[in-house]
This record gives sequence, structure tokens and C-alpha cells, in this order.
Amino acid sequence: MLRTLRSVLRFRRRARTRAERLRAQAANIDDLRSLALRRLPSGVFNYIDGGAEDEVTMRANSAAFRRWNFAPRVLCDVSQVDTSTTLLGRRLPIPLVLAPAGFSRMPDPDGELAVARAAARAGLPYSLSTVATRSIEEVAAAADGCNWFQLYPLRDRDLTRDLVRRAAAAGYQAMMPTVDMAVSGRRERDVRHGFTLPPQIGLGTILDGIRHPGWTWRFIRSEPIVFSNVIGRSAADGNTPVALADFINTQFDPGFSWQDVAWLRGEWQGALVVKGIQTVADARIAADHGCDAIVLSNHGGRQLDGAPPALDLVAPVADAVGDRVAVICDGGVRRGGDIVKALALGAHACMAGRAYLYGLGAGGEAGVDYAIELLAEEMHRTMALIGCTSVAQISRAHVAPA
Amino acid sequence: MLRTLRSVLRFRRRARTRAERLRAQAANIDDLRSLALRRLPSGVFNYIDGGAEDEVTMRANSAAFRRWNFAPRVLCDVSQVDTSTTLLGRRLPIPLVLAPAGFSRMPDPDGELAVARAAARAGLPYSLSTVATRSIEEVAAAADGCNWFQLYPLRDRDLTRDLVRRAAAAGYQAMMPTVDMAVSGRRERDVRHGFTLPPQIGLGTILDGIRHPGWTWRFIRSEPIVFSNVIGRSAADGNTPVALADFINTQFDPGFSWQDVAWLRGEWQGALVVKGIQTVADARIAADHGCDAIVLSNHGGRQLDGAPPALDLVAPVADAVGDRVAVICDGGVRRGGDIVKALALGAHACMAGRAYLYGLGAGGEAGVDYAIELLAEEMHRTMALIGCTSVAQISRAHVAPA
Amino acid sequence: MLRTLRSVLRFRRRARTRAERLRAQAANIDDLRSLALRRLPSGVFNYIDGGAEDEVTMRANSAAFRRWNFAPRVLCDVSQVDTSTTLLGRRLPIPLVLAPAGFSRMPDPDGELAVARAAARAGLPYSLSTVATRSIEEVAAAADGCNWFQLYPLRDRDLTRDLVRRAAAAGYQAMMPTVDMAVSGRRERDVRHGFTLPPQIGLGTILDGIRHPGWTWRFIRSEPIVFSNVIGRSAADGNTPVALADFINTQFDPGFSWQDVAWLRGEWQGALVVKGIQTVADARIAADHGCDAIVLSNHGGRQLDGAPPALDLVAPVADAVGDRVAVICDGGVRRGGDIVKALALGAHACMAGRAYLYGLGAGGEAGVDYAIELLAEEMHRTMALIGCTSVAQISRAHVAPA
Amino acid sequence: MLRTLRSVLRFRRRARTRAERLRAQAANIDDLRSLALRRLPSGVFNYIDGGAEDEVTMRANSAAFRRWNFAPRVLCDVSQVDTSTTLLGRRLPIPLVLAPAGFSRMPDPDGELAVARAAARAGLPYSLSTVATRSIEEVAAAADGCNWFQLYPLRDRDLTRDLVRRAAAAGYQAMMPTVDMAVSGRRERDVRHGFTLPPQIGLGTILDGIRHPGWTWRFIRSEPIVFSNVIGRSAADGNTPVALADFINTQFDPGFSWQDVAWLRGEWQGALVVKGIQTVADARIAADHGCDAIVLSNHGGRQLDGAPPALDLVAPVADAVGDRVAVICDGGVRRGGDIVKALALGAHACMAGRAYLYGLGAGGEAGVDYAIELLAEEMHRTMALIGCTSVAQISRAHVAPA
Repeated sequence: MLRTLRSVLRFRRRARTRAERLRAQAANIDDLRSLALRRLPSGVFNYIDGGAEDEVTMRANSAAFRRWNFAPRVLCDVSQVDTSTTLLGRRLPIPLVLAPAGFSRMPDPDGELAVARAAARAGLPYSLSTVATRSIEEVAAAADGCNWFQLYPLRDRDLTRDLVRRAAAAGYQAMMPTVDMAVSGRRERDVRHGFTLPPQIGLGTILDGIRHPGWTWRFIRSEPIVFSNVIGRSAADGNTPVALADFINTQFDPGFSWQDVAWLRGEWQGALVVKGIQTVADARIAADHGCDAIVLSNHGGRQLDGAPPALDLVAPVADAVGDRVAVICDGGVRRGGDIVKALALGAHACMAGRAYLYGLGAGGEAGVDYAIELLAEEMHRTMALIGCTSVAQISRAHVAPA
Repeated sequence: MLRTLRSVLRFRRRARTRAERLRAQAANIDDLRSLALRRLPSGVFNYIDGGAEDEVTMRANSAAFRRWNFAPRVLCDVSQVDTSTTLLGRRLPIPLVLAPAGFSRMPDPDGELAVARAAARAGLPYSLSTVATRSIEEVAAAADGCNWFQLYPLRDRDLTRDLVRRAAAAGYQAMMPTVDMAVSGRRERDVRHGFTLPPQIGLGTILDGIRHPGWTWRFIRSEPIVFSNVIGRSAADGNTPVALADFINTQFDPGFSWQDVAWLRGEWQGALVVKGIQTVADARIAADHGCDAIVLSNHGGRQLDGAPPALDLVAPVADAVGDRVAVICDGGVRRGGDIVKALALGAHACMAGRAYLYGLGAGGEAGVDYAIELLAEEMHRTMALIGCTSVAQISRAHVAPA
Repeated sequence: MLRTLRSVLRFRRRARTRAERLRAQAANIDDLRSLALRRLPSGVFNYIDGGAEDEVTMRANSAAFRRWNFAPRVLCDVSQVDTSTTLLGRRLPIPLVLAPAGFSRMPDPDGELAVARAAARAGLPYSLSTVATRSIEEVAAAADGCNWFQLYPLRDRDLTRDLVRRAAAAGYQAMMPTVDMAVSGRRERDVRHGFTLPPQIGLGTILDGIRHPGWTWRFIRSEPIVFSNVIGRSAADGNTPVALADFINTQFDPGFSWQDVAWLRGEWQGALVVKGIQTVADARIAADHGCDAIVLSNHGGRQLDGAPPALDLVAPVADAVGDRVAVICDGGVRRGGDIVKALALGAHACMAGRAYLYGLGAGGEAGVDYAIELLAEEMHRTMALIGCTSVAQISRAHVAPA
Repeated sequence: MLRTLRSVLRFRRRARTRAERLRAQAANIDDLRSLALRRLPSGVFNYIDGGAEDEVTMRANSAAFRRWNFAPRVLCDVSQVDTSTTLLGRRLPIPLVLAPAGFSRMPDPDGELAVARAAARAGLPYSLSTVATRSIEEVAAAADGCNWFQLYPLRDRDLTRDLVRRAAAAGYQAMMPTVDMAVSGRRERDVRHGFTLPPQIGLGTILDGIRHPGWTWRFIRSEPIVFSNVIGRSAADGNTPVALADFINTQFDPGFSWQDVAWLRGEWQGALVVKGIQTVADARIAADHGCDAIVLSNHGGRQLDGAPPALDLVAPVADAVGDRVAVICDGGVRRGGDIVKALALGAHACMAGRAYLYGLGAGGEAGVDYAIELLAEEMHRTMALIGCTSVAQISRAHVAPA
């Protein structure tokens, strides 16, 4: 009888795929966050989850969406709802870009490759970070989706140019310099955990690893983590542990300016997206410099604490330059309804980082799939319930201050 | 001596009716909610209590009432206070309609019949849901009050027409299509509990049942729960457990539109009430389509999270169409004072669902009686204390922003 | 040695008077509340501390003071600060009237006599309640201060007239009909505790009494509690326990109106103060009826939940009738600074009830002394720190919205 | 082997300086506060941490900074960021003055000397309090930085004049009368702890000391604490314990007025700074009296509860008198970003007290160094991230209401 029971249990376990388990355990992105919190060592979770200083801006990013209600129209015949849109000349199933994220192999050994594959599968652009742990070429090989390259301008201009050329050669669709990181923000959770690159082994780290054996086992078996795009080409040798903030402050170029954007515009033939715009004035300058899109972003609240929530900028920026550049809203997106709100206020698309990273931490590649699926379903449902059958129909009349 | 003690205890138990026990345990609707929380399995309680996604709108519904204060007039001679009003041609003791609710036999085996009887006893309209667990005819037979029929427009138009004709035949006063449910909202408490119809038995369910033996005992002894109005007539066979959201999304008609309301207006001779209006624009359209009343409602926060609280719509909608249609405010009503506030802002009546469902869960039919009594007493007291002796006297001058 | 230690300890205990102990244990009125919470049976504490329904108005009363900041002027020479004022022709050391309170012998057996004596000692008016547990004559005999009589208009007009004449005969300075109690508010803490008059003995009451032996001992030794002013003269026989709300609803006159105020004006030669005004309109009517003062009051949030905080009414009412009647602000006063804020907005004085009742519960008559002393000291300090040396100097320029 | 382990551990302990330990334990000023909370007896910690009455103003001071967001400009070339400014003719590395604080030897035996040395090292002005536990001369001898003298005007005018002359003789740069302390605020944490000067030994004090042996050991070994500047010259003999508030109320001059400021202006040749201005009107009067700077301050919320947060006054005061006097914002500064916000609104500098006192309590002199370093680094980072390379560039356009 015991054998029968065992076989049943084994059967149940096999029957349930990772995706099914995620579905049963997580009803939304916040639930994925809770799973990731359980599954990841705290240092890794906090690296994903944390923000700068008091995390005021980080919380404000999400809270900004709560300050808007919908104004739902009923009886509109929503038997067909189309969530797709066109961004930078490509048709996307939902107006969403996966944000760049460094160290994506920390939450899951498949890291950037897993995310890029999930994005490609969903038909969404994936933004590969300069400080990714997989190279431009590896990601291009793994996912033939439409990849964007996120560029941190480096002090070493040759290395910067090299990155641009490699991205072009690998068929990346867009080049996206991040301009809100002249110096590194102070993510104090990382400061407290002594988060370094490569991760430094200490007593705390070991205990944390023992408490999360699944993650540790996968981590130990995987290849060592390095900055795949810049290592060997920069001063960081990848062997001595270095605090992330120190790496940024020594390698990144705080002198990068609009003149350099003009230079980049000349170097790069594809779409140029400036990420980190936070004022209407700078949005105008970006448009004047021939940028194709701007990402309204405060780096997920990880750089300047006290920066305005991106959503608050959408309407004024869209009014000012929305006809000249695509306006992308980044920060705090946790629901499909959030995307609809940003669109109603004038955004052309949203960008989300933590949303998929929680998925990655909770369930690896399947978790990223599920995170995207959740946002898509929520967006579809929200559109139906406010009476919009296409993205074009979503207008400022569909929202009102809460 | 033990026998004496026992007889005393038994006497006490008999002496105290269910109604008296409720009175001693619950001073208000929130207390009834607490009792229901204790008495019901968590899946059942959460089905009643929960809302869509983050439940922002659900909480906002109640919070909206807190944003208004009264402006109480004193020394008005309130020795006679009359809380009654006329709605759709009927005199009601208080301006209240019992909202439609699916699955009312989950909190208590008497379910819809208990509620309908209590409503009839109190002289209030009861709205029977399309997805009720008692049929149109059963409810009509049990309660000769003034019943309304809540209509979910189904993909199967013949079945829809059939429902309308059955309601007419059974003497229902009003037909009330619900228009905020083109697709099912995501009530994540239900998603997490795997709430299905009929309820699926699993380890969690069994443990929950054991912890609530009173409910379980009554539930086991009662007839199996089915969709009494639509079962056998639709694709859902009632035997395979089906997630509620799936049922809605396969059976309900997301294509239902104002044209179909016009069709319904032709099919139905009684009062036509559109439930789920959430903008002034749609209120105008409803009035133009010959509706007799509109229910400002976001489905108790169970459909679109981020929908505006109904109370916030009352004043602008009443200003726009209050002279052409009756305006009913639904959502967040927990106090008689809430009803007075809605009336002051221009509503003709309120609708309440959870308020009586908590009563049903806390004490069955007697609990519904008590919930209605609480609201009526509170409304009476509030009117006396603001110096109004009739509903007609309640004016916008009696409230002010808090 | 043990004996020496004991004698020292005994000496310390004796050396510390009740007043000294209070000073050491309570730095402010809120601390007195905490002491009362510990010292009193919960039913008694909640009778003092609780408010109507959800206690929204009760909390709003205090919160209203937090919505104003001071605008402190410096370097004004505040070596002499005079907190005194004239109210209804009498010079008071601080602009404060002790509010009427029923059942004051519940928190302490000395009850109304203790409060009246403390008020007289401090030179402040004490308002004796119609439902006090000491009679008009007893209080007049115990305290030759300036007493006010709070009048609940009773259905029995002869009894009402009798009360007025007894107050006149006993030398009361002011007659103060309370007009916010046409019907009894629902204080749900009392409903849950089954608070009745006289207190009903049950298992809960007995256990509560055992947990508070000090209070119980004093309570048992003291005379039985009755409505001293109305008992024997009304239908309540004082022997059968009766819920307070039932007593109010059967004895009080909900038909009392402005006409009856005119009648009262004719019956009473002293100052006439109407307590419970909550709108500018009613303040104007009161002034037109020859009232000498009005008390802006929502009965401490014990009557209509959702009534506006009294402080919010001060400025508009003072603007409308401040030159014709004295405007008294009642509700939420817990600090001397609160009094200063009310004065700055236009009030002539404040009224406080719970503030001294917490003192009474915490330390009997000495507690009332201490509560008054705290408010006086705080008011003095606040005036010095905002640069006002007299009550006349306190102006609207000394406050600003927070 | 045990010996090896021990030597390693000892080595580690030695290797880690106090400064390194602080860096590892505290990422920001709030963390220093937490360390101080652990390290100090509660009476001492609360003396530093507490505010007047309900501490509303104290909390509002910090909260005021949260009501402003930055408006960050990007791509500005911030490779060189200069945080320095000129205040009262001196170049400071950051626009920060260390606020005066009484009893600084309570948190650490080095007290005022440690703070003065750290300030001098950092190139910042240190304000020595009248009620310091080190004398004017001792501080001048220990730190040849630019010291300011904070003056409490005393009833004894000769003593006051004496203090002014001693400060002049000792080379103090600025004389800073504090004008928000006509009488002592009621810091109720101190009232509850019975905080006296010198500290009174009681059972509670002893137990608290045992729980904090490190502090106690250092405290016992250090010299007795007295008011170094005024003792022997005033009525307080320094032997009988006296409550701080009593000392203030007997020794400080509540009659000090603008006339006396004019007198002081004549007595003192250096810079005159008036601390405690809280209205635009008084700021104008201060400018008219020839003051060189004003400190907008509510004494860290320790005097008048209900005083406006200093930051709220910065813009209107700077608009009114910013061209005639230096405007210094005091209260709630916990981040370098706070300083930038104050500057953006028009302040010339900030003043911080608790920020360095937490450091002093957490780690003595090294803690003060670290607190200053944290603020400087945060200010530098914030300026880089909003695109300002000099203090002069920080403008009102760089902030916006949150």
C-alpha cells in the first residue's frame, strides 16, 4: 500500500510541471516576489528588490499607479480585445519591454539567456545590460528575438565603441544608453550585505547558502559569474571582489553628456533609446538629438532617492514630445492595469524589470514566462473591463485621479 | 446536581434564540463579518469577502464614505422620522435593495431562499443572480416580495431570452443586466484557494471543513449546489469542477452592447435597471435607452481593480440624469449613515451585498434579518441626528467633504 | 536590616502623595488615559473612552488640532504670560469649561463632587449633567464654584421645568441644553459590554471587577448609583437595569426644537448656553434666540459618527456670530496647545470632558486637579513660545494649516 | 590550534578600526541612530532622540523633506562636482553647520571636544552650547576650527555679557542667540525618565547602566558633568540634581527681546546669527537688526510642539530676506539629499544636530566623523545625479512637490 501511495505521490510530482506549480503558488507578480524571497539567499533577493537610500522613490513608483483610477466604459462589445502595439517599427503583443538588469545569473543560473528566450517566445524586446553576465553574442545566439542593448557609457571610450559595434554586428535592434547613473546610487541593502562582484564568501554568505540549498546547488554547478561584456576589456579583472558601486564609480563615465549622445547617434544606425529621462526639458533635448524613444525612468528607485515616479512624468512628457519620440514608462509596473494607465496618460509602452526578475527568482525561465503571461492577461482583462478593444482606443478619458 | 446544571444550561440555550445571540455578539455589520469569518471555511469566506487583484477598489468603496461628513442640523423636532422612500413605483421602508450574489448557498444552505424571505419580510427588493443556486421559480415561490432578476447576458441568446421570460412569468419586478462583467475579474483569494464550482474536495478543503464542523455538517446535509438558473441549459454540466472565472469567460457574452440593451428593453415590460455604470457618459446613454434605473457599481470591487468608488459618481451622475432615472449607489455600504450620505449626494437608493452576506454567514436567515435591521436602525438614528424627518429632506446641504 | 529596608520603603510610600505619584506616572493627559485604562474595569473605561459607531468623529476631533501648526513669534518679552479670560462675565484662569458627563461616579466613587470641587479650586466652571449621579443640590453644596447645569430636555416638560428651577435655586450660573441628542448615539463598546444603568452584574463584570480590586473595593463601599437629578421623578425606577440608550430614547424629548429654546429662554434668567451646534446656520439661529454662548460640539464623537470635528467649525462660526455669542469649542482637547489653537481660530473658550475624566479614573479628585494643571501649564508654555502674553493677543496670524 | 584561532580573532579585532566597524554596521544616519539606541542607556538616548509633547513637529521636520522630489537633469557632465560653499565669509566643504547641543558628554565622555575636533577636521563650524559640558575655552583649545557660540540669554545679564566676551576672546566666529526657548519645552520622554542634571542615580538608572556596561564604564571613569560655561557663575550649584526644564525656567531670560538683540549686536563684533526664527515676519525683523544669518529652526521639535517644519519656511523666508542674510535650515536633516533640497528652496546652508549626536552615541568621535562623511558623500552623489556640479547651480527648478 505504501508503494502505491509513493507511486501516486511521485506521479503527482511529475504531473505538475514547474509552470503548473508556479500557477498554483502565485496569483500575481507580488506572489512571485514572495516566492523569490523564499527561494533566494537574502543578499541576492535584496540586490533585486532593493532601492537607493530610504527607497522612497522605489515605493513611489508603484504608489503612483494607485493615484489613478480608471473611468470604465461599459457595453462596448469587447468580444475581441487586441493588446498589441507597434514600437520602434515592430509589432509587439503587448506594449512591454523587458528592462535591462545586471547580474541576472544571480537569481537563476540561466540568467540573461533565460530571460532573452522568454522574451523572444513572447515576442517582446529584451534589453541586455552592459553589466550582464552573458555576452552580447551569447544572448543573440540564444534568442533570435528583438534584443536591445543597454549601454553604460564607460570612461574607456574605445571599449564603449566596441560594445556598440558588437551589438550592431549581433543584430540588436536598439541601443539604449542609461543616463541616470553618472555615479552609482547607494543601495543600502547591498551595502549592509556587503554585496560584491564576484560575490564574496563569508560566514553570512555560507549560512545564507545553507538555508537555500536549491539555489546554492544550482549556483555552485554553474559557471563563474563575470561581467561578460566588459571583463578583460576593462580594469576590473574579475578576480578580486569589488563592490558594485566601486566598479560603477571607477568604470562608468560621469562626463558623458548630450554631446556624447550626438556622437553615439552617429555611431549607431539602429533605434536610439535614451533611458533615465526625468524632466520635460530633458525629454525635449532627447527628441532634438534624434532619439527614437525615451525611457522615463529613475532606475527603479535604485539611483536617486527622491526622484519623481516615472508615471507622473508621462502626461507632461507625452504632451511635449509624444509625437516625435516613443515614450516608455519604466518603474513600478506590477500589473497589466498599470500598463493601461501609463498608456492612457500618453505612454507608448512600459518597461518592467523587477516584475520578470521576481519570476526568474521564483521559477527560472518558466517564471519569466509566467510573469509576462500575468501582465498580458491582466492587460487584456483591464482593456475589456474599461471598454477598449485596441491600444489605440486607450485615451486619457479612461483614467481619472483617484 | 449535574443534571440541574445541565437543564439550566439547556434552558439558557433554548431561551436565547439565534437572533438574540447575534444581537449579543454583533453590534454592527463589521461584527457580523467577524462572526462569518469565524464560522465559515476560509474559501467560502474569502469568496464573499474578497475583491479583484489588490482589492484597492474594494477598500476604496468603503473609504469613499469616510471622505464625507454630515452637516447636522439640530432642534428640528425629530419625534417622527420616516426612512421610507419610493423606488420604481414601490414604497420601501428604507431606500435599500439587496444586491445579487452568486452561490449564496455556500455561506448557508438556505442561501437565496433565506435572503429572499428576509428581504420580503423587510419589504425590500431582493435581486436574484443569474448564477444563483436557487432558480427563479423557487425564489418566487419562497418569497412573495418584490424580486428583481439580475441578468448576466449569456453567449447563448436563447438561454438569455428564456431567463427573461421566466422572470416575467414568475412576477419579478425588475430586470437588471449587469454590465461590468464583460470578462471575469480576477479575485485572487479565490485563485489561491482554487475555488471552483461545484467546490472541489482537496486536502485543504477537508481540513478547513474539519475546523468548521457546524458549517460542514449543514453543508453535507444540504442538496448539491448547482447553477439553478442556467444548469442543464448551458455547456456547464455541473459535474466537472470548473473555476468560476472560466465559467464566466466561456458562458457570458463579452459582445453584449447597448444595442442588446435596446433589444432587452423590447423583451421586458417591467422596470429595466442597468447595473455597473461607472461614468457620467454611460449614465446618459442608459437614460437614453429607456432604463428606469442605473446602479452605480464596480461589482463591490470584484471586477476591475482601479475602478472608481461608486459614491464618488453619485453627485455628478445624479446631476446629469437624476431626474430621468433612479440612481442607485452600490458598494461599500456598511452603515445606515452610508445610505444617508449617498442620498444626500443625490442617490435614490443604495444596494448592499456583502452587508447581508456577512449576516447570512454569521447567522443564516436570522443574520440577514439582523443585518437589514441594523442598517435600518442606523439610518433612522442618523436622520434624527442630522435633523431630517423624511428622505425627501435629506439634501446636499447635509453633507460636506471631511 | 530587613526591618530598616521595610521602614524606608513604607516611608517612601507614605511620603509620596497621590498627586506626586500621578506626576511621576503621567506626563500628559494621554498618560492619564493609560493609567485609567489600567485602573478601571474595561466596561467603565470604555464608557468614558468610547464613541459612536466606528469612532471616526471621535478620532477626527483630536486629529483636527493636528491639521494646524502655530506660527510662533519670537523675542516678544514673555516674562509675564497671562492665560486668563472672561467668559459669560466671569474671569477664568484659563479659557476652559469642564464638560458635563453622566455617571461620573463610575470611574471614581467621589464622582461629580470630586470634579466640581476640583473645578471650583481651579476657578473653572463645572457643568453638571442631567444624568449625573449627584444631584443639583449636592453639587452646589459641595462646590461653591460657578456651576453650569447641562439640561437634557425630557419628554416630561414638568420635570424639565423643575430641573431648571432647582438649578436657579441652587445658584447655577448657566443653563446648557444639549441639542445633539435627539436620539441616543450608538456607542458600540457599551453595546458589546452590555453597559446598563445600574450596572448589571454578570460573569464578565465579576471577572473584570476581580482584575481591578482597587476600583471594585471603592465601588462596593460607595452608595448605590442612581440618576440623582431625575430618579423618582421619571419613569425609570432605578432598580431594573436599563440600557443607557433605552433610557435616553424613552425619557429624552426628540421633539425639542428652537421654539422650546425660546420657552427655556423665558424660564431661565441666567446665561443660556446651547451645546451641540454643528453648523453656521444653527449658530446664527442660536444667536437670534438670545443665547449667550454656543458650544460647538459633536458630543465627543459619542452621538453622530460622521459629524464634523468641532475645531473645523470654529473659524466660520466665529466669523458669523463671534461678536454676538461666546463660541466654545468642545471635543478632542488633550493639550493646552489645543486650547490656544481654538482661540487663535476664534473660539472664546474650550470645553473638555475626557481630559478630566481620565484624570478622575487615574487618580480620583487629585487626578482631576492634575489634568487641569497639565492643560493650564501647557497653555502657558504654548503662549510663551508663540510670543503671546495675553489671551487677547492670540490671533489667527498665530496659526497656519499644517 | 585554539591559540591560533585566538590570535586570528584578536588580529581581526585589531585590524578593524572603530571607523571600519561603523562603516560595516551603519549605512546611513538612521543606522547610526539604531546603534546609539543599542549602545546608550535609554535615558541618554531619549534625551537626544526625543522632542516636545507628542513629537508632532519633530516628525514633521523630517517628513517635510519627503514632500519634495528632485527634478534631476541628466547628461550634464558631472565628472567634477564641487559641494563647497561660502558661509559668513568662510569656505565650507559642504553647506553644513553642526548644531549646538547641551550635555554632549552624556552620549560619549569626549562630548563637545570630540564633536569640535571632528568638525574642525571636516572644515565645518561647530556651535558650542551655553549649556555645554565643556567650556568655551576648552573647546577653543581642542579645536582650532571655526567655532560658533550658541547663547541662551540668561536672566543674569552680567553673566550673559561675560559669555559673549569669553567667546570673543577665544576667537569664536559667530554668536548665535537661540530665541525659541523663552521657556523650556516639555520633552516628555525626559519627564518620564526623570532626567536631571547632574543625572540622578535611582534604581532605574542603575539597571539601565548595567545593561549598557560599555557606556557605564566610560561614564564612571570620566570627570563629573557640569554646565561648564555657566556653573559657579549662576544659581545652579551643580550638586543638587535639578530637572533640565527647571534650570532653564529659572536661569534663562523669557524677557529677552529684539531690543536685547540690538544690545548684543553692539557687544559682539563677529557674525551674529539668530537661531529659532519661525516666521517670515521675524526673519525680516532679524535682517533689520543687522543679523548676518538666521537659523530657521524649531529646536528639532524639542520646544513648541505644533511649530512648522523649518523646511517649509525656507522658500518664503529666502524670497523675503535671502539677499540680506544667510538663511540656514535646521531640523530633520538626515541625508545629504536633504541639504540639497533645502538649498534648492533657497537656503544657504543647513544645520544638523541629531545626525552627529547619533554618530557620537554610536561611535564617539569616529562616529561624528562618519556622520559628517555620510552627509557629504550623499550630498555629492545627489548633486551628480541631479546634474549640478556646484552649489550655485542648485536652483528651485531642481525640486518639485512630491
